[in-house]
Amino acid sequence: MEKIVSLAKRRGFVFQSSEIYGGLNGCWDYGPLGVELLKNIKEEWWKFMTYRENVEGLDASILMHPKVWEASGHVANFTDPMVDCKQCKARFRVDVLGDMINEKKKEKALETFKEKLNGNNDLLQKFQAVSEASEDLFSGILENPDLSKVMLEEINCPQCGNKNTFTSARQFNLMFKTFVGPVEDSGSVVYLRPETAQGIFVNFLNVQSAARQKLPFGIAQIGKAFRNEINTKNFLFRTREFEQMEMQFFVKPVDDSKWYEYWKQERLQWFVSLGMTKDKLRYHDHPKNKLAHYAKEATDIEYEFPFGWGEIEGIHNRTNFDLSRHEEFSGKSLKYFDEEAKEKYIPFIIETSAGASRSFMAFFVDAYYEEEVNGEMRSVLKFHPRLTPIKAAILPLVNKDGMPEIARNIESDLRRNMKVFYDDKGAVGRRYRRQDEAGTPYCITIDTQTLSDQTVTVRERDSMEQVRISSDKLLTYLLEKIAKS
Amino acid sequence: MEKIVSLAKRRGFVFQSSEIYGGLNGCWDYGPLGVELLKNIKEEWWKFMTYRENVEGLDASILMHPKVWEASGHVANFTDPMVDCKQCKARFRVDVLGDMINEKKKEKALETFKEKLNGNNDLLQKFQAVSEASEDLFSGILENPDLSKVMLEEINCPQCGNKNTFTSARQFNLMFKTFVGPVEDSGSVVYLRPETAQGIFVNFLNVQSAARQKLPFGIAQIGKAFRNEINTKNFLFRTREFEQMEMQFFVKPVDDSKWYEYWKQERLQWFVSLGMTKDKLRYHDHPKNKLAHYAKEATDIEYEFPFGWGEIEGIHNRTNFDLSRHEEFSGKSLKYFDEEAKEKYIPFIIETSAGASRSFMAFFVDAYYEEEVNGEMRSVLKFHPRLTPIKAAILPLVNKDGMPEIARNIESDLRRNMKVFYDDKGAVGRRYRRQDEAGTPYCITIDTQTLSDQTVTVRERDSMEQVRISSDKLLTYLLEKIAKS
Repeated sequence: MEKIVSLAKRRGFVFQSSEIYGGLNGCWDYGPLGVELLKNIKEEWWKFMTYRENVEGLDASILMHPKVWEASGHVANFTDPMVDCKQCKARFRVDVLGDMINEKKKEKALETFKEKLNGNNDLLQKFQAVSEASEDLFSGILENPDLSKVMLEEINCPQCGNKNTFTSARQFNLMFKTFVGPVEDSGSVVYLRPETAQGIFVNFLNVQSAARQKLPFGIAQIGKAFRNEINTKNFLFRTREFEQMEMQFFVKPVDDSKWYEYWKQERLQWFVSLGMTKDKLRYHDHPKNKLAHYAKEATDIEYEFPFGWGEIEGIHNRTNFDLSRHEEFSGKSLKYFDEEAKEKYIPFIIETSAGASRSFMAFFVDAYYEEEVNGEMRSVLKFHPRLTPIKAAILPLVNKDGMPEIARNIESDLRRNMKVFYDDKGAVGRRYRRQDEAGTPYCITIDTQTLSDQTVTVRERDSMEQVRISSDKLLTYLLEKIAKS
Repeated sequence: MEKIVSLAKRRGFVFQSSEIYGGLNGCWDYGPLGVELLKNIKEEWWKFMTYRENVEGLDASILMHPKVWEASGHVANFTDPMVDCKQCKARFRVDVLGDMINEKKKEKALETFKEKLNGNNDLLQKFQAVSEASEDLFSGILENPDLSKVMLEEINCPQCGNKNTFTSARQFNLMFKTFVGPVEDSGSVVYLRPETAQGIFVNFLNVQSAARQKLPFGIAQIGKAFRNEINTKNFLFRTREFEQMEMQFFVKPVDDSKWYEYWKQERLQWFVSLGMTKDKLRYHDHPKNKLAHYAKEATDIEYEFPFGWGEIEGIHNRTNFDLSRHEEFSGKSLKYFDEEAKEKYIPFIIETSAGASRSFMAFFVDAYYEEEVNGEMRSVLKFHPRLTPIKAAILPLVNKDGMPEIARNIESDLRRNMKVFYDDKGAVGRRYRRQDEAGTPYCITIDTQTLSDQTVTVRERDSMEQVRISSDKLLTYLLEKIAKS
């Protein structure tokens, strides 16, 4: 993982945001190669999802009416429980607080905690319930408002070491809030959207009528979302600012399972079709008792990162929850009129929600190889040609005899059609290695034979095989290779 | 203008954000056709700007370290002066307050104001200076901290009518602020970027070294920016959330004028090359005494909207101001080492800053025509084929005789390569009109002749001329038409 982060930085895929100021935790900038890879991932998703008769595109604003987030449940429920230390004013998420205490101290605290519960039937009952439901007993206790009061008395503050110093656990909302207009009061609060989905839900009838769609149909959107995560981690995996590629597919309630299965297959296949290793992808179906309040069925598409399996996309059967809530909170009907059945109803929604930033990271990690070539190691990013940032590099072997002129002509011919790179510095072997590391699938060398017969060699990144072709057929050759790969 | 806004809404180009909740002022959503037009504008810009050897791409985060905005001057200077009414608590931007008072009352207030100044040489001197510098004397007085105190006593509150009720004018910052992490205090304030440029400046050396660039070279970026405008207006023209397409070109200080002229030409030409009416475009050079504090030269590219000339892009010679400030505030050297001259210096920056949302509006307005065709009016959006949302519509004339099957085959053949639309409902004349209104450049009709000789007609949107071509040559025909237009 360290190697990958270091390569990402060195070759200009990803930089820390505001690095010269020490960075901003949980925010990243995509550099010259990164922005191309990210754009290509988004473009492939857009084509795959919206170049269909029954999916429309949308680009909703990041700032939305605050009632949207009341209806969605985010104002009330999109929270993490936190405690403050009254002495040193440090603030901790309770599950993190649990992680900061060593096992021995935990056991001791748990012992005293249980003694204190003796005779209090109400608390004993709650403890019983938490014991049965929680995977992590300690976090479970801290997340329960009544039990945490008792337990927090037994814990020392990890920062200042004081005991008996914590406030009771309070819920902190993970939405970033800001104020619209010049007055900063509760009436002017708006939120940075924590997900792009709601922009689709509130536009359901607008899109349906403008595009004259009938059920089943979907609305797709790519855009930024923001979560005020307390703990960011794993490079691009958990960040405060990130990009989503979401599609909400509106269906007749009776057809929900059929379409859930359809999109589940489609979406995993998309990653595979762009070269992601099949064995490193899996579904993680959510058990019924772990489903979110709005979901009837849910699965994660997970990728096996160096730090373990991690979600890169979720597919959810959201039922009619979202549209019903928006109908209730807005007072506007969001029912669909089914012309065939001559009835009005609220459609069910099948959601496919992929992280663009997480997909970026998965494609990046998946493409990275170290290989021995003629006794030397090469690092190579084996991106799918449609995803790769630079499509071709033009490498004149010698900087004389008219080679640079021919090379420049080839370059300008290709450049109108794709992202290319021109490099005439250093030994050709080293130039190849630099392109391997950037993921460039085709290197074109211009040599003395080019001067006599107008042919060039095209060296393929993965096989390292070279073919000789006529320079006037080069563009067509590359475009076909990329399109068909 | 009203017609255009109404068409934009009806056909799914632009919707009001959170419309079912009454909307959110200054925020807009791009619908199915709008998102394609916007994407195409951004894609054309990206190719035009970054498919060059000396321009690299970047995608920096919206949230940045707060010191960035101290260095840039936004924390101190990106403000509007405002006053509060002590009685009714209404808040007004002072220039707007001036606009809300009728001329007669203004004259009277000005008279009393002058009387009060009598004998106060300090204030008289300030008044003299404001009189000479201000285009609008009244606003000039209100924006001056000392003079406004006197004048505000003479003005009634436009909301409650009370006199002698205003606080003194205070500066309100136009940046949206939010808090990162769980504690909402001054130490955790971050801002939504009010421009994308700073993300480029702070990454200057990162990009330069990762991409091994030498001066002159540029960094280009497309992304959202946010300004807490008190007065939003003119549809997409002044909004709170908007998208920018910015490029910062780093040059040797002695070469600044040459590159300023170069980019000035290039950028206007870009709009023309995508079909924008040349006569509706002009430069508005900023006079030397009106330049922003960082600028040596500046020009706006303006488009003639229905409401008058409006800026759609700015070209600025920003000198070494930005990098010098970031060097000062970050304590990190941002000097470039010039290998040829063997010296270190801070480059000058030529900026090209286009509004994606404003470009969208200009292309939209410019493409709109109403024409009489055979005694009937048609509305048509004459978008450039590379910008237009839908590239081709497939219209089987009759829904029988195998026509739908042929039409569907053609559709699926085209759909893999471009955004297309299938329509088999209603008279073909009405179907043409619907496509004209969406800006679709090519309508393909399948008729009885198709059944016998596999030819289709292609009807061109602007000339309305039809040509018959073999259906197996259709894809190549359309791709060439679009590429060469």
